[in-house]
Amino acid sequence: MSVHASGGSSIPGYEYGTVSQSPVTLAELDDLKASVMFGDEDAASLRRAGEILDDQVEDVLDVWYGFIAGQPHLVAHFSRPDGPPIEDYLAAVRLRFGQWIRDTCTKPYDQEWLDYQNEIALRHTPEHKNDTDHVGSTQVVPLRYLIALIGPVVTTMRPFLSRGSDSAQDVDAMMQAWLKAVVLQIALWSRPYALPGEW
Amino acid sequence: MSVHASGGSSIPGYEYGTVSQSPVTLAELDDLKASVMFGDEDAASLRRAGEILDDQVEDVLDVWYGFIAGQPHLVAHFSRPDGPPIEDYLAAVRLRFGQWIRDTCTKPYDQEWLDYQNEIALRHTPEHKNDTDHVGSTQVVPLRYLIALIGPVVTTMRPFLSRGSDSAQDVDAMMQAWLKAVVLQIALWSRPYALPGEW
Ligand code: HEM
Ligand code: HEM
Repeated sequence: MSVHASGGSSIPGYEYGTVSQSPVTLAELDDLKASVMFGDEDAASLRRAGEILDDQVEDVLDVWYGFIAGQPHLVAHFSRPDGPPIEDYLAAVRLRFGQWIRDTCTKPYDQEWLDYQNEIALRHTPEHKNDTDHVGSTQVVPLRYLIALIGPVVTTMRPFLSRGSDSAQDVDAMMQAWLKAVVLQIALWSRPYALPGEW
Repeated sequence: MSVHASGGSSIPGYEYGTVSQSPVTLAELDDLKASVMFGDEDAASLRRAGEILDDQVEDVLDVWYGFIAGQPHLVAHFSRPDGPPIEDYLAAVRLRFGQWIRDTCTKPYDQEWLDYQNEIALRHTPEHKNDTDHVGSTQVVPLRYLIALIGPVVTTMRPFLSRGSDSAQDVDAMMQAWLKAVVLQIALWSRPYALPGEW
C-alpha cells in the first residue's frame, strides 16, 4: 500500500485539494448539474444523508465490495492480469472510497471538488490507474462498467438511508439526491474515455 | 419528417428487428446486466410498469420534452447549429421515444433488442445522428449529457408509476427496475463514444 498521504489527510493517496485543475469549467459543471436536475434541495438532502451514513460507511462498503468480489469481470480490475485480487490495492482504494461517500454528501461542488473529480476519473483510466497504489493491475476500468455500477451504488443505499428514522418522503428525497450526485460524477468521470469532441 | 416506416411499424424511422447486428455479444450483455444488478424480478417489475405507463406515455414525454426544451445546451441537439429547434425532428423523435418507453418495459432483452440498442447508440453519434430524419442538426449528443439525463429520466417517473394503486413497496421495486434498465441502456449506448479498448 502506498504511504504518501497528502493534503493533510491520513488516507494514503487521497489528494483532495492538491491535484491539478480539471479541464472542465464551472460553467460546464452548471450545465451538467441542470441536465441531471440537481438542485439546492438535493444538496440539502445529501447533507442529511451524510449524517445518517456517517457511522454506516463500513457497512456500505462491505455491500459494495462483496458485490465487486462476486463478479470476475469486475474484480479483474483490482487484480494482476489473470492473477488473484491484489489485497493491498483493494484495501487502499476502500479507504478512499469511504471518504468519497462522505465527500459526495458533505463537500460543496466547487472548483476543488471538480478538480478531484477529474483525478478520480483519470484513476479509472490508463492515465493514472495503478499509479497511486503502485500496482500492476489492468490499465483501465471499462467505461460500460463504470456506468453500470450506478445501479448497485444507488439501489443498495436505501436500507442504509432508511435507518435514520426520517419520513418515507425524506428517504425518497435522499435517494433521489444520491442518484443525481452519483450520475453527475459518472458523467464527469466519462470525459477521459470519450473520443475527441464527443464528451 | 421522414416517412419510411420499417419493420411493419407505423412509426417513421423505428427499425426494431431490421437493423444490423450489434458488435456487443449476448455474453457481454449478461456481464453488464449483472454489473447493473438487473435480475428476473426487475424484468417482472418492468412488465407491471409497462401496464401502468401504457396510457400515460404522452404525459411522460410532455415532462421530458419540457425539460429538454428549457435547457439551451440540450435543445441545441434538436436544432440547426445556432438555429431554432427543428420541429419536425422533435416530433419524429418523440414518436420513437414513446415506443422506447414501451419497449424498455415489455421487450425481452435478447439479440434483437441488443441490435436496436446499438442503432439507438449510433443515432446519438456522428455515425447515424440526423440520418433517420434527414435533418442538419449537430453531429453528436455529448456523452456527458447522455449520462446526465439518467437523472430526470429516472426521477420523474415516480408520480406516473404511483398512479397504478400498487403498494409503496411495489412502486419502489418498479422505480429500481426502471433505473437499472435505463442505466443498462446508457452503458450500452456509450460504446461508440469510447476510445479504442476503453469501453
Ligand atoms: C458508480 C461507479 C463507481 C464509483 C462511484 C467508483 C468510485 C471510486 C472511488 C471513489 C475511487 C477512489 C478515488 C480516489 O483515489 O480517491 C475509485 C477507485 C477505483 N475504482 Fe471505482 N468507482 C466506480 C466504478 C468502478 C468499477 C466498475 C470498477 C471496476 C471494477 C472500479 C474500480 C476501481 C479501481 C480499480 C480503483 C482504483 C484506481 C487507482 O487509483 O488505481 N470502479 N472508484
Ligand atoms: C437517458 C438519456 C436518454 C435517453 C433514454 C434517450 C432516448 C432516446 C431515444 C429512445 C431516441 C430514439 C431512438 C430511435 O430512433 O428509435 C433518441 C433519439 C435522440 N435523442 Fe436521446 N436519449 C437520451 C439522452 C439524450 C440527450 C441528452 C440528448 C440531447 C439533447 C438527446 C437527443 C436525442 C436526439 C437529437 C435524438 C435523435 C437522433 C437521430 O436519430 O438523429 N438524447 N433518444
